[in-house]
Amino acid sequence: MKNRLYFNRLENLETVKEELFNSIQEEQKSIGYYNLPKQDISSILEYANSFNKKIKNIVVVGIGGSSLGAKAIYNFLKPIQNIKRRLFFFESTDPLNISELIKEINMGKSHFIIISKSGGTVETISIFKYIYAKDRNSDRYTFITDSGSNLDRFAKSIGSKVFHIPSTVGGRFSVLTAVGLVPLSLSGIDIKALLKGARRIKKAFFEKGEMTSILLDKAIFYTKNHAQYGINTIFAYSEGLKYFTEWYVQLWGESLGKIQKNSILNIGLTPIGLIGPKDQHSFLQLIMEGKRDKSVTFIKIEEHKPPFKIPDITLPHLEALDILNGIEFGDLINMQCDSIIEAILNQKDIPTDEIILPRVDEKSIGELIYYYELLTSLVGHLLNINTYNQNGVEAGKIILKEKLKRLKR
Amino acid sequence: MKNRLYFNRLENLETVKEELFNSIQEEQKSIGYYNLPKQDISSILEYANSFNKKIKNIVVVGIGGSSLGAKAIYNFLKPIQNIKRRLFFFESTDPLNISELIKEINMGKSHFIIISKSGGTVETISIFKYIYAKDRNSDRYTFITDSGSNLDRFAKSIGSKVFHIPSTVGGRFSVLTAVGLVPLSLSGIDIKALLKGARRIKKAFFEKGEMTSILLDKAIFYTKNHAQYGINTIFAYSEGLKYFTEWYVQLWGESLGKIQKNSILNIGLTPIGLIGPKDQHSFLQLIMEGKRDKSVTFIKIEEHKPPFKIPDITLPHLEALDILNGIEFGDLINMQCDSIIEAILNQKDIPTDEIILPRVDEKSIGELIYYYELLTSLVGHLLNINTYNQNGVEAGKIILKEKLKRLKR
Repeated sequence: MKNRLYFNRLENLETVKEELFNSIQEEQKSIGYYNLPKQDISSILEYANSFNKKIKNIVVVGIGGSSLGAKAIYNFLKPIQNIKRRLFFFESTDPLNISELIKEINMGKSHFIIISKSGGTVETISIFKYIYAKDRNSDRYTFITDSGSNLDRFAKSIGSKVFHIPSTVGGRFSVLTAVGLVPLSLSGIDIKALLKGARRIKKAFFEKGEMTSILLDKAIFYTKNHAQYGINTIFAYSEGLKYFTEWYVQLWGESLGKIQKNSILNIGLTPIGLIGPKDQHSFLQLIMEGKRDKSVTFIKIEEHKPPFKIPDITLPHLEALDILNGIEFGDLINMQCDSIIEAILNQKDIPTDEIILPRVDEKSIGELIYYYELLTSLVGHLLNINTYNQNGVEAGKIILKEKLKRLKR
Repeated sequence: MKNRLYFNRLENLETVKEELFNSIQEEQKSIGYYNLPKQDISSILEYANSFNKKIKNIVVVGIGGSSLGAKAIYNFLKPIQNIKRRLFFFESTDPLNISELIKEINMGKSHFIIISKSGGTVETISIFKYIYAKDRNSDRYTFITDSGSNLDRFAKSIGSKVFHIPSTVGGRFSVLTAVGLVPLSLSGIDIKALLKGARRIKKAFFEKGEMTSILLDKAIFYTKNHAQYGINTIFAYSEGLKYFTEWYVQLWGESLGKIQKNSILNIGLTPIGLIGPKDQHSFLQLIMEGKRDKSVTFIKIEEHKPPFKIPDITLPHLEALDILNGIEFGDLINMQCDSIIEAILNQKDIPTDEIILPRVDEKSIGELIYYYELLTSLVGHLLNINTYNQNGVEAGKIILKEKLKRLKR
């Protein structure tokens, strides 16, 4: 992937950049996600290769960090892939949603992957109980959780397969652990190539390659301007990146929406995911004429497939649109993207950059994921917050537990 | 539906409220969407009732206002409905997306509804040409467009059925015209009940019922506080409302992101759609601890179906979660919603309100849609902008046309 920044990069900040780079270097010792690109995945590959061939559906029961990453990668690659097994995601307590999903899957051909880092996620355990009450065959289940969690102990007690999440990797940074790799590998996606992409970006940043100054400059710009440009939109010209933007929203929002260290200040950058050209007919008006509080990052696929064309036919009264005849859809969507970039740059006061992925494949999405994880860490460091916790979600959980207890009395 | 406002309603604004109410009353003469709830739909019903029974797929080719409304309503009602015909939506020029959709539908059992208000939407006409080149049977197509548009003239020239969009109804306000009603009616959804819901809210606002002061107060609050609370999130506790939030994003963003009248000021309110409980594990942290720039509107379904329960089983090591045993999923999701509302209200500085829909049905979604259309009009009026145009999206279209022309030389 390439990344071009169209906003003014701040000069004379060499010391800031140096310190930032060193801090992130240092953080690698305590924050586990940095080192995932070079992990040993042989046990996952072996597990996937020897997996029951009759199983055609992999059903992930997980929520938030336990589902968004695999969902993003699967949906990006599904259209180009010979999918061995389809992935399904149970991620809601909405009874209509659960019953719809249950109707859709053939239970006999399904294997369930129960994912909860803490091992006690209310949604996940509720749904698991519902399924487990129907089928107590422990071969039907694989568990992914922290080593030593209650779910880990339960899984071992019934003799199911368990994978662990490294304790230093947080949920929203866990896509490149077993959380993402196990279901993706079972679906037939090449997880080696995925990690190769992540490794490429890691190297291009930490070994002072072409990503070092781009990522530092972008993080510094976002932080310096957070008070004005508090909303960071991704405008991806690929339908397959829809769930990637949901993964991004969690990563960015949950990491960067915080009370500052040693302070009472609430700060945070708001992520928004858009898909082109669809959202040209929706959110674009707000970017073009609305309040100047948004940055825009376009994501473009260089080489689209399949190469099919708008037919060269003239229709009565629609001759004005013959201008489209003979053009490949892949070229059209990229010209649409370029046109919007140009229109936005003409406004002069909307910070814009562009990420170009060479094609729809494992390496591209691996690169994109690691790029956004690094950018999140960099901005979090500059904002002087704890990027890796999520204390703000605890209050709601405590209130729910109280309500549940009151019900039981 | 009910709506409870938890923020401080501004007092002593009787004159402002009176003027606002009168302006919106007045606007009904020139803005067509207000009067859609009481339109005559007999021709649509007749068309749907006599429709070819062998057709099982209705494929909508449209983008933005031409697809988001039907998609929102269809996806909300699909799980409870005996769907007569499935709806599909072609809304992208992404070639992978087009080829995926074509694989999915059985062309022989499909009917295509081509929707473009202007009649010249690049995406829609490109995709239509692609399909039409494969099958020139005019019975396969229904067109929905402005009377007299080039697409209208084309449709008549090949002898296909055409429905018109009233010229005073803009694309993003057109869900209750043929644009939404024709595909929904073909899928088996009760469009009479949908309009009944809209009529209920219309009456409750214009005839000084229970919605009058709620809508006026909410619009005044959003406008007065737009500089601080520039982001308006909807947090819907129903998976079926996912596409409703996309419809809302277009309605709100494209209507309210504008340059003020007689001014150079860019203003706008940024819409964000969230789904609970999923986004408790994503965006919630940012609401709870991040910058105080967001209002939150919760949407809750009072009576969930189907009424199934978390089984009353105890699993070794997971006994702490027995607290969930025997609870209906529908009650759990509502308790989750109530817990988050309570946690947010405890923060004291996050403007919050709550919309309660009695159940998943046509009337509820009709009410919700009309409620948001009215709220958009009210806020647009107070912001002193033109709520109904979208000049900001023209620049990109012009640049694209230039690029296409250069290609042809």
